[in-house]
Amino acid sequence: MKLEHSGRGRNIFRFNYLILQGTKIHPLWGTAQLFVHPRFMHGAATSSELGVYAYSAAQVKKAMEVTHYLGGENYVFWGGREGYQTLLNTDMGRELGSFVNYILARFLEAAATYKKKIGFNGTLLIEPKPQEPTKHQYDWDAATTANFLRKYGLIDEFKLNIECNHATLSGHSCHHELETARLNGLLGNIDANTGDPQVGWDTDQFLTDVAESTMVMLSVIRNGGLAPGGFNFDAKLRRESTDVEDLFIAHITGMDALARGLRNAAKLIEDGSLAELVRKRYQSFDTEVGAKIEAGKADFEYLEKKAMEWGEPKVPSAKQCLCPEWMLLFLFTFTPCSAPYFYSPYNPAVFLF
Amino acid sequence: MKLEHSGRGRNIFRFNYLILQGTKIHPLWGTAQLFVHPRFMHGAATSSELGVYAYSAAQVKKAMEVTHYLGGENYVFWGGREGYQTLLNTDMGRELGSFVNYILARFLEAAATYKKKIGFNGTLLIEPKPQEPTKHQYDWDAATTANFLRKYGLIDEFKLNIECNHATLSGHSCHHELETARLNGLLGNIDANTGDPQVGWDTDQFLTDVAESTMVMLSVIRNGGLAPGGFNFDAKLRRESTDVEDLFIAHITGMDALARGLRNAAKLIEDGSLAELVRKRYQSFDTEVGAKIEAGKADFEYLEKKAMEWGEPKVPSAKQCLCPEWMLLFLFTFTPCSAPYFYSPYNPAVFLF
Amino acid sequence: MKLEHSGRGRNIFRFNYLILQGTKIHPLWGTAQLFVHPRFMHGAATSSELGVYAYSAAQVKKAMEVTHYLGGENYVFWGGREGYQTLLNTDMGRELGSFVNYILARFLEAAATYKKKIGFNGTLLIEPKPQEPTKHQYDWDAATTANFLRKYGLIDEFKLNIECNHATLSGHSCHHELETARLNGLLGNIDANTGDPQVGWDTDQFLTDVAESTMVMLSVIRNGGLAPGGFNFDAKLRRESTDVEDLFIAHITGMDALARGLRNAAKLIEDGSLAELVRKRYQSFDTEVGAKIEAGKADFEYLEKKAMEWGEPKVPSAKQCLCPEWMLLFLFTFTPCSAPYFYSPYNPAVFLF
Amino acid sequence: MKLEHSGRGRNIFRFNYLILQGTKIHPLWGTAQLFVHPRFMHGAATSSELGVYAYSAAQVKKAMEVTHYLGGENYVFWGGREGYQTLLNTDMGRELGSFVNYILARFLEAAATYKKKIGFNGTLLIEPKPQEPTKHQYDWDAATTANFLRKYGLIDEFKLNIECNHATLSGHSCHHELETARLNGLLGNIDANTGDPQVGWDTDQFLTDVAESTMVMLSVIRNGGLAPGGFNFDAKLRRESTDVEDLFIAHITGMDALARGLRNAAKLIEDGSLAELVRKRYQSFDTEVGAKIEAGKADFEYLEKKAMEWGEPKVPSAKQCLCPEWMLLFLFTFTPCSAPYFYSPYNPAVFLF
Repeated sequence: MKLEHSGRGRNIFRFNYLILQGTKIHPLWGTAQLFVHPRFMHGAATSSELGVYAYSAAQVKKAMEVTHYLGGENYVFWGGREGYQTLLNTDMGRELGSFVNYILARFLEAAATYKKKIGFNGTLLIEPKPQEPTKHQYDWDAATTANFLRKYGLIDEFKLNIECNHATLSGHSCHHELETARLNGLLGNIDANTGDPQVGWDTDQFLTDVAESTMVMLSVIRNGGLAPGGFNFDAKLRRESTDVEDLFIAHITGMDALARGLRNAAKLIEDGSLAELVRKRYQSFDTEVGAKIEAGKADFEYLEKKAMEWGEPKVPSAKQCLCPEWMLLFLFTFTPCSAPYFYSPYNPAVFLF
Repeated sequence: MKLEHSGRGRNIFRFNYLILQGTKIHPLWGTAQLFVHPRFMHGAATSSELGVYAYSAAQVKKAMEVTHYLGGENYVFWGGREGYQTLLNTDMGRELGSFVNYILARFLEAAATYKKKIGFNGTLLIEPKPQEPTKHQYDWDAATTANFLRKYGLIDEFKLNIECNHATLSGHSCHHELETARLNGLLGNIDANTGDPQVGWDTDQFLTDVAESTMVMLSVIRNGGLAPGGFNFDAKLRRESTDVEDLFIAHITGMDALARGLRNAAKLIEDGSLAELVRKRYQSFDTEVGAKIEAGKADFEYLEKKAMEWGEPKVPSAKQCLCPEWMLLFLFTFTPCSAPYFYSPYNPAVFLF
Repeated sequence: MKLEHSGRGRNIFRFNYLILQGTKIHPLWGTAQLFVHPRFMHGAATSSELGVYAYSAAQVKKAMEVTHYLGGENYVFWGGREGYQTLLNTDMGRELGSFVNYILARFLEAAATYKKKIGFNGTLLIEPKPQEPTKHQYDWDAATTANFLRKYGLIDEFKLNIECNHATLSGHSCHHELETARLNGLLGNIDANTGDPQVGWDTDQFLTDVAESTMVMLSVIRNGGLAPGGFNFDAKLRRESTDVEDLFIAHITGMDALARGLRNAAKLIEDGSLAELVRKRYQSFDTEVGAKIEAGKADFEYLEKKAMEWGEPKVPSAKQCLCPEWMLLFLFTFTPCSAPYFYSPYNPAVFLF
Repeated sequence: MKLEHSGRGRNIFRFNYLILQGTKIHPLWGTAQLFVHPRFMHGAATSSELGVYAYSAAQVKKAMEVTHYLGGENYVFWGGREGYQTLLNTDMGRELGSFVNYILARFLEAAATYKKKIGFNGTLLIEPKPQEPTKHQYDWDAATTANFLRKYGLIDEFKLNIECNHATLSGHSCHHELETARLNGLLGNIDANTGDPQVGWDTDQFLTDVAESTMVMLSVIRNGGLAPGGFNFDAKLRRESTDVEDLFIAHITGMDALARGLRNAAKLIEDGSLAELVRKRYQSFDTEVGAKIEAGKADFEYLEKKAMEWGEPKVPSAKQCLCPEWMLLFLFTFTPCSAPYFYSPYNPAVFLF
C-alpha cells in the first residue's frame, strides 16, 4: 500500500513550519488528515471498522516517520471524526473506554510506542474539539481529554493543542481552556484562530481581539513558553476573500494581534498589580491553618473547631470590577488615560435607584 | 388606589438621570417596573387577567405623569414578563396580535394617546429582550419589535432602547441590533451594558470591550447622536463586589470604554478609509442601471436582457480581512504600529499546505 | 445567456413534487439555487455586484417560468447568502432597506410583478433562516421577515416556508415560528426537517419527535391546512448512511412522525380540554370592559378608574403543569397506531432531486 | 457555633426521601446548601477565604452526621458556587489543582475520611453543573469531574448525580452524560429534571419527553440500576403555577414520563434489535485481529502490514436512520398505557423541603 491522497486529492499530510533564524526551517508539527475521505465516515482510531482502524494506524505511522525525517517538533492528532452522530448506534464503551477494552486507548498507546521506537522526540499533541462534523467528539475539551489520558495511563505521553474557536464551541473561554491545559501540565501548542461569538460552528477566523490575545499570552508566559510547541495559523480564508493580498493581510493581522497581546501580557506581569490583587484574595491561606489544609492535614473535626472559634467569616469584595479596568489600562497603556473622560458632573448618564 | 410599592418594597419608578451643564438635572427616562410583584406573573400589558391589565395601565399612567413632571426626556417600556412560558397555555393571537384584536396594541396605543393628552413630548421607548424570565418575550429583538409596531400602525410613535446583552442573547451582535434599529428609524436610546459570550442569561455587565464600544459609537454617530435619548447604565454590581469603591470603578470603567469607543469611531469616520472600502464594494450600483433598480424601474425582463448582455459577472474580493486590520489600527491608533512585529522571515508560525 | 449549471454541476432548479391521487403530478414548488456558485459569494438579490443582481433576476425569472409551465403550486425564495459576514464591509441600509433605496425590496417587487405578468398563480414563499453560511441572513426568522415585507409594502404578496431546524437555530421553538407565521397571515408551507438540540448548525434531520410533530400539526390545523402549500422533505441523508434502503427508512420515519402528530393534534382539538384551559385563562377579557379594551376604547383614565375600583387583582395559576400532562396523555393513549400511514403512493410529499 | 440558617432562613439541609413499601422511610440523600448565604459568594470548598472554607467543612460535617443519623442512602455535594466569575481574579491552580496544592482536593479528601470515621456507608455524590450562578463551575460535566477525581486519587471515593438540565447546559445530551458517568464507573444517582432546549439557564422542569426518559432508563438498566442511588425530583414549581394541585400534577407527570421510559427501555432491551444493530457495526473487531488490538498487542508495524494486505477498507452504512425509526416504533407500539404507574404512595422519589 502506498499512501494515497485524501478525498480532495491533496494534503494527506500537513505541516506547520517553524521558520527559525537563519535558514534552518523545520515543521512545527506534522499530522495525518483522517476525516475527509469517506472511509473515515465512522471515525479513524474509533471507527467501527477494523480495516479503517488499521488503515489509520498505517497513515499515522507514515506521517510520523515523515515528520521525524523533516525534523518536525511535534506530531498532532486531529480528532476529525472520532466521536458519534447518535449514541443509539454507538458502542461508546468499546470506542472510548469503559473498563477493559477500548480501541482509542490502544491506538494512542501504539502511537506513543512507535514514536519511541523510531527515535522521534517530538511531543504528541491532541487537539480538543467538541463537535463538527460529528455531534460529539471524544476529545470535547481539555478536561475531557485529560480524563481519558489519565484513565488510559497516557497522561505523560501526550500534550494538547488548544484552539480558541474549539474552546468557545465547547462553552468555555479560550483562556479557560489554556489554563485548564496548563494546570494539568498539558499545554503544548496553540492553534491561533478564533470564532464568531454569535456563530455555532467552527469559523476558524484569525484572532483579532487584543483583549483575547492578551489572555492567551498570559497563559503562554505562565507556562514558560510553548517550546517545543508554538502557534500555528490554521485560519481559513473566507470564500468572499479572493485576492492574493487578502492572504497576507489576514496573516499579518493575526500575528499583529498576538504580538500586541504578548506586549500587553508582559506589561501586566511586569507591573504586577493584577497578580497582587489575586495574591491578596487568597492570603488567608498563607497562614499556618492554610498550610495545614494544603498539606492535607486539616480534617473535618479540626476545621469545625476553627470555624466555631472564628464565628461568621468576613468575606471581602472580589474586586471583579477592577480587573477589566486594569485590562483597559494596559490595553491602552500607550495612551495614558490621565483624565477622567465621561464621568465629570457635566456629563451624561448616571443612574439612581 | 394609591401606587403601591413593588414586591421588593422599592423602585416602582426608576429614573435615569441626565445631568446637564450647570445645575439643571432631569431624568433621561422614567419607567414603571411591572414584573417583580407576583401580580405580574402572567405579564402586564399582555396578562391574561383584565385586572392586571388595568392595574398596569394605571401604573404606566402615573409613571408617565411623574416623568413628565420631572422634565424627563423619555419614557421606557421594559418588557418584563410580556411573553410566555409555554405556547400551550397561551393565546398569542389575543396577546400579541393576529388580525383584529390584540391587547398589547391597545395598551401601547393608549399610552401614545395619553402622552399627547398630558403634553409630554418625551420619546416612548421599548427595550427589546428575547428571554428571561419568560421563555419568549414578545419584543424579542429590534426587527421583531419593529414588526409589531408596523402591524399596529404605531411605528412612528415609539423608538427602541437597545441593550448589548439583550442583543447577544437574541443571537445578534450588538452592532447588528443598533444598525437594525437605526435603519428602521427606531434608534432612541442605549442601555450600556453587555454580557458574557459564554453565558446564556442576562449578566448586565459594564461594557469594557473597546472594539465593541467602537462599533456602538459608529452607530450613534451615523444616527446623528441619540438626543433626546442617551446612554443609561443599568449594569448590576456583582454579588461578589461588595466595596463602595467597586461602584465607582465599575461606572468609570464602563464610561471609559464608551469614551474610547467614541474617539475610535470618530477617527474611523474622519479617516474615511473603511467607508471608502464599503462605497467601492457597491459602486456597480452607482450607475444608470443601478439607479433604475433602486428606483423600482428595472423589471425581470430588463434585468435578464442585461444579464445576457454582460455574461458571467466579475465578483471582487469582499476584503473582509482588511476590516479587522483597520479596526486594530484604529483601536491602537495612539500606538502607531510602525514596525512589523511578528511577521519577519525570522519569526514563527507560517502555514503551508 | 442560457441557464448554466451551478457550481456542483447540478440542480439549478429544484422541485418538490406533490403526488396526487391518480396520476396527476405537479411540483409543490420550484426554486432557483442561488448560493453554491462562487458568483453568489456576496449574495444574489443583495449582492454588492450589480451584475450578480441582474444574473439572479434572470435565474429567478426562468425558474418561475419553468415552475409555472410544470403546474407548480408555489415558488420558493431560498435565502442562501442574502446576509453578511461582517457589518464592517456591508451597507445594510442599501441591501436591506433603510428609508429610500433598497435592492432586496426591488428584487422582490420585480418577482411579484413578473409572477402576475405570466399568469402564475402560485404563492411566493420566503424561507426564513438565521445563519449559515453567512453570520447573519436577512430573513432571520418569521417576525424579521414579516417586518421587511411590511416595510416594503409586500406583506400581501409573500408567505413563509417554515423549517423547524431554522426555527431552533434562531432561538425559537418550531411551534413558535409556525404560530408567528400563522398569526401574521404568512404560514404557507413547511420544510419538514428538524435539528439536533445540542448542535449549532443546520443538520436537516427528519423530524422524529412526535411531541414536536403534534405541535407542528396543531398550527397546520389552526391555519385551516396549508393549501396550496404542503410539507416538503429537505432532510439530508447523512454521510454515514450509505445504503439505498436508508433513503426509504428515513422518509418513512419522517412521514410517520408527521402522521402521528396529525392524529394527536386532531385528537387534542376534538377533545377540546387544552383549548378550554386557554379560553378560561383569558375569560376576564370576555366581558364588557374586555370588549372595550379590544375595541380600542379603553383609555388610560378609564383603566385607572377601573383599577382603583377593583383593588388588587386576583391572579390564578397558569396551569403550565397540566399542559405537558395533557400532551403525554394524548401522545400515548389515543394512538393505537397499527398501520403505516402516510407513505402510500397516493400520499403527500416526496422529494426529488 | 451552632448551625445557622441560610440567607433565606430555611433549608440548610435538604433531604430527598425515598419512601419504601410499608412504613420504612429514609432519605435518598442529604446535603448542605452552601451557596445562598453571602458568605459563600466566592465559593465554599473553593472560597478564597480560609474562614469560609472552614465554615463549609463544619457544615458538611454536620450535614453528613445528620444524614447518617437518619439512615440516608447517599450524601450529595452541590457545586453551588465552586467556580469563578472571571479568571482574572482567580487562582485556579490553587482552587482546583495544578501540581501540588489544591484546596478542593483537600476538602473532598477530608469528607471521604470523615465519612469512614463515622461509619457512614452512603455514597458520596457530586452533581456536575457547568454554570450558574458562576460563569464556570469546576464540576462542569461528568468527564471534567472524573478528571479531577482521577487527578486527586479520589475516583473510587465518589460517584456522580447526573441532572438532565445540567447536561444540556454543558452542551451534551442527557444520555451522553449518563453514559459518560456509567462508562467511568460513576453513575450513582439521577436528578430527574430537564430544561428547555431554547433556554440558556437552569429551568429545572419535570421531564416529560418520553424519548428522553427512554434513553435515561436505558442507561439505568445498563448500569444494573442505581442502588443505593435513585431518582430525586428537584424540579421547581413555576412562579406562574400557584395552585396546590399543580404540585401533584407536576410530580405525577414527571414520574409518569419516567415510568413510560422504563417500560420502553425494557422493551427495547428485551427486543434486542437495537443492540444487535450496534453489535453488528463492531463485528469486525470480534476477530483475531480485533482481539489482538483490544489486548494492546497490535503495534503500528503489524497494523500497517494488515492495512496493506487488505487494501481499501469496505465501510458499511451506520444505519442512523433506523435508530429513530426503532425508537418511534417502541415508543408507540408497545405501550398500551392504561393505568397510572408510578405515583402510588408506595413508590419512589418524592421530595420534601
